[in-house]
Amino acid sequence: MDGSPSAPAGVSGPGRIAGPEEGISAQELALAARNHGLPLEALRYDVTPPGLHYVLVHYDIPATDPDGWRLTVGGRVLRPLALDLDALRARPSVTRRVTLECAGNGRARLTPRPVSQPWLVEAVGTAEWTGVPLAALLAEAGTAEDAVEAVFTGADHGVERGVEQDYRRSLPLPVAADPARDVLVAYAMNGAPLPPQHGSPLRLVVPGWYGMAHVKWLRDITVTATPYTGFQQSVAYRIRTAAEGDDPGEPVTLIAPRALMIPPGFPDFMSRARVVRPGVVPLAGRAWSGHGAVTRVEIGVTDVTGVTDVTDVTDANGGDGGDGREGDGGGDDGGTVWADAVLDRDPAHPWAWSSWRATWTATPGHHRLTARATDAEGHVQPLAAPWNRGGFANNLVQRVDVFCAPEAPEAPEAPGAREAPAS
Amino acid sequence: MDGSPSAPAGVSGPGRIAGPEEGISAQELALAARNHGLPLEALRYDVTPPGLHYVLVHYDIPATDPDGWRLTVGGRVLRPLALDLDALRARPSVTRRVTLECAGNGRARLTPRPVSQPWLVEAVGTAEWTGVPLAALLAEAGTAEDAVEAVFTGADHGVERGVEQDYRRSLPLPVAADPARDVLVAYAMNGAPLPPQHGSPLRLVVPGWYGMAHVKWLRDITVTATPYTGFQQSVAYRIRTAAEGDDPGEPVTLIAPRALMIPPGFPDFMSRARVVRPGVVPLAGRAWSGHGAVTRVEIGVTDVTGVTDVTDVTDANGGDGGDGREGDGGGDDGGTVWADAVLDRDPAHPWAWSSWRATWTATPGHHRLTARATDAEGHVQPLAAPWNRGGFANNLVQRVDVFCAPEAPEAPEAPGAREAPAS
Repeated sequence: MDGSPSAPAGVSGPGRIAGPEEGISAQELALAARNHGLPLEALRYDVTPPGLHYVLVHYDIPATDPDGWRLTVGGRVLRPLALDLDALRARPSVTRRVTLECAGNGRARLTPRPVSQPWLVEAVGTAEWTGVPLAALLAEAGTAEDAVEAVFTGADHGVERGVEQDYRRSLPLPVAADPARDVLVAYAMNGAPLPPQHGSPLRLVVPGWYGMAHVKWLRDITVTATPYTGFQQSVAYRIRTAAEGDDPGEPVTLIAPRALMIPPGFPDFMSRARVVRPGVVPLAGRAWSGHGAVTRVEIGVTDVTGVTDVTDVTDANGGDGGDGREGDGGGDDGGTVWADAVLDRDPAHPWAWSSWRATWTATPGHHRLTARATDAEGHVQPLAAPWNRGGFANNLVQRVDVFCAPEAPEAPEAPGAREAPAS
Repeated sequence: MDGSPSAPAGVSGPGRIAGPEEGISAQELALAARNHGLPLEALRYDVTPPGLHYVLVHYDIPATDPDGWRLTVGGRVLRPLALDLDALRARPSVTRRVTLECAGNGRARLTPRPVSQPWLVEAVGTAEWTGVPLAALLAEAGTAEDAVEAVFTGADHGVERGVEQDYRRSLPLPVAADPARDVLVAYAMNGAPLPPQHGSPLRLVVPGWYGMAHVKWLRDITVTATPYTGFQQSVAYRIRTAAEGDDPGEPVTLIAPRALMIPPGFPDFMSRARVVRPGVVPLAGRAWSGHGAVTRVEIGVTDVTGVTDVTDVTDANGGDGGDGREGDGGGDDGGTVWADAVLDRDPAHPWAWSSWRATWTATPGHHRLTARATDAEGHVQPLAAPWNRGGFANNLVQRVDVFCAPEAPEAPEAPGAREAPAS
């Protein structure tokens, strides 16, 4: 990294791993209270309604003013640009439906838990982004022959592990300048100007990549002749499998496959466990991968009635680190019965999640439902999560606890049941 | 309460209090990941932009269809009503700017911590709600002479502490039917149809009351001759000061006063601690109370440089349960220096928060800033939080840790500093 610690003592600590019995800390809670995921029932919408799309803000949402905003394009370019919003809107635009997921999604399900934004499975959303193709802007500016990367700077400013910084990330030019990658400088989300928390007035959208690449409040693009080595590139967002040491790790890039289920039935407020009635229960959800089309979604059903420690069931499915798969879609993994869901991929929206559906015949008792996606490159969601120090790209399968019970004998809460009509 | 436990064993547990060393649990985290507060920098907006207003959903956001929606008004009324959205929109409407806060705001700052949605201070937001005055609908229906309450039923369904239920709350008729209370059946938020998470297509808005009264996905109003005793009225949302026992408690109603500060400077990602430069630092924020106008906001500054356990500082301010106030706005409380902020109340919006501003001259070191509101009825925010079993209405003062440090000597993260221009 280029940069030395600049924050005052006390404000910023090193990254750390939670202790074996340590609950979510006050600091993690403060992040969880301000950032938020997609309530899983909102998987029902093809395009996530405003306010339900996940949000992760590193520092503060900056107080930006669209009227005076300038995007500069400089560095190793032949014709530097300085564009206001009118200039961007005057250029040919495209609209792309993109599923966006935080690289930290799944972090809080790792053991031991890396201490940071404690996502479970819900850090995802899908929006229609409108903007100018980055490839067109780079072609207009003309990149020098020695150019290798484009570095994107946002207006959000803060400290992270002792390093004061504007949020900043790079992309290799072969990604940034490839029209087929559909990287956008976006000024609209779902047909409206960007909301403050999604980057007003401008953000980068990098279809297929985890959220850290989609720089918000974008104010500068600098083309460089050497790879960028700043904090968010070389320190954060690396897959490091050792808990300690100087391992540079591998960069976090494309979204790993994931399937999520709309939790069936209705929930308990506190446990979020689900209640269904006996009989046929429709199951539905979404699945996506940054590596290509999702080609398969499997639904696993495990009867855990009477099992007091359901963690054991999870481990029995894949605790040896294998993927637990046996046979061809109908095998048995620690008592789990698998069946393929029906996938509905919309070719008009290759960067967006696909929908899937299945049915399950519920019988009284306690069941655990699992959803697992496979993509065109053969990546399969793991049944046991590989660990890494930053807690990135944990696409461990979703598991939903469901209690099946007969219909309640009465509606005990109805008002006015004892009330006669007034007339 | 009228109603008996109806959920299957295992799905739903009793309410509980966290153990002395217990961190935030997986269940609390699951709630924190789907519900969300107002990022505090968003206090800068008079009206909270879409997606930044706090959201608390007890069960699931229901899949409602505005086209077929019917609001029924029945029970002890002379002329029962069944109104679709067109019928509601055809009636005279009003728009009110209302600050809405969750009754559980502040819960996670209590010791011991009641286990539920773990809010810190951020469960608030302000919106412009448009709808039909409830008083007009009740006048149209004509309440019977023996009517005492109106019971409101939402479409969200779930289990809570063993009781299966639709979300349902009542208001006394003197509140519900009083035009001066401005209770609304709202169909628009900030000029647009209600978003799913805010009650699409209809919700109740009860200015001055905590959020539990503002029933979302409103489908029925039943006027009753006896007080409603369902779960959300008689079990939940009661102030019980004993940790155990059958204390019926006092109902949660009007919002207690609170001031919140836009955290100054810029944050550390993980700790959310703030960094400012030496010199004059503008401070600003909002304050509100459901009991009447906020009449005073005080800012306290405590130098905690070198104090290793800042919890001790907090306790020194008010650990005896007193409000710690001495003198008239400039006293000394455990080293805290108080000064009055300038309040800017907008008489056009009596149900909305007021803005306030102050300045602070920062000197190098570690400081703690406190904001404290007083309302027209003389309610003052406490410096030490009174405890209650449900963790409701905890309006303990906000405290913001700020580190003041000289300007960083360089911008270590700038890209392309080593890059020559391309031409």
